[in-house]
Amino acid sequence: MSQTAWKRVILCCLVLISTIALSIVMAAAPATAPGIEFTAEGKLKLPTDYRHWIYVGGSVTPNELNRGAALFPEFHSVYIDPESFAQYEKTGKYRDGTVMVKELASVGGKEETSGKGYFMGDFNSLEVAIKDSNRFKNEPGSWAYFNFEYKPTVEKEAAPHAAVACNKCHQDNAEEDFVFSQDYPVLRASKPQSK
Amino acid sequence: MSQTAWKRVILCCLVLISTIALSIVMAAAPATAPGIEFTAEGKLKLPTDYRHWIYVGGSVTPNELNRGAALFPEFHSVYIDPESFAQYEKTGKYRDGTVMVKELASVGGKEETSGKGYFMGDFNSLEVAIKDSNRFKNEPGSWAYFNFEYKPTVEKEAAPHAAVACNKCHQDNAEEDFVFSQDYPVLRASKPQSK
Repeated sequence: MSQTAWKRVILCCLVLISTIALSIVMAAAPATAPGIEFTAEGKLKLPTDYRHWIYVGGSVTPNELNRGAALFPEFHSVYIDPESFAQYEKTGKYRDGTVMVKELASVGGKEETSGKGYFMGDFNSLEVAIKDSNRFKNEPGSWAYFNFEYKPTVEKEAAPHAAVACNKCHQDNAEEDFVFSQDYPVLRASKPQSK
Repeated sequence: MSQTAWKRVILCCLVLISTIALSIVMAAAPATAPGIEFTAEGKLKLPTDYRHWIYVGGSVTPNELNRGAALFPEFHSVYIDPESFAQYEKTGKYRDGTVMVKELASVGGKEETSGKGYFMGDFNSLEVAIKDSNRFKNEPGSWAYFNFEYKPTVEKEAAPHAAVACNKCHQDNAEEDFVFSQDYPVLRASKPQSK
């Protein structure tokens, strides 16, 4: 072979080796969701990309129906990271590495031209649930839970809650693998057996 | 130059010409949103990809708060196509070609471990709004509105509603360009001047 041909062969081999190495690294670690990062101390940084993720459904627990102070005030909008959703569509399972985000907004109004009810006001906080068997191997189900308040200022990082604060309730009441799939029709409709 | 070199030059020119031609075609026609197609008769086919779009917010108009029959029963989940959202983030305007989808779901429950309120049941219909100055040049604001009922069976295509049925209310009451941005905090938070 000429020198040029040899160079091409070597280049092809290098690309192949790099691709295999990258595949091995990606298979070993739980896949990361876009916009999800931790500090060196293991705190979660405020997620940045979740409004481009898959919306799975929402609910509203108005303060006025919960003695003036709902546990989660008031509108809940829930997202899942895109790759975990794609896996859920195939398997009906929440893969290791799944991230779910619940953004909370106040009730902004109770009547519009579309009728009487509840309409969204301003965002007030963000809740995050992450399943990671490496990072959270001591948490039940490997799920950890985080909260970011937006007021008076937006919190930029958060430590995981103690298991008793969030995990316990999800473990006891959520329909499948700590997730309240029962309240989110996109999840119910996307499960393989429902198609 | 050798024959091989000439072939390469010709190939490069062809690729360049094709790219320019494609850019001109794409600039002339309103961009299409993924999963949005029309029949030869101008009916809209049931959109297929909107659950991968950008969720902009939701509301709930329960039947029980609207004399037993809400105009839009009951949960509203609203999406915008991704490219139009990217443009909105830059310009604060709804570009020609914008598609918004509102998926409606029933109220499935009124109490969960998170509190009292309204929780999603099953999907029941889909509403679609499309701004297209070519296809809907005779509609006010170039916006046309479509509805797909899911029951008793899922409707597969829909003709646009008469302007008086939907367009008029949007024209009179929506905050900006026939869109009720006032009820959707993702849109409010994404406008350039709000960042």
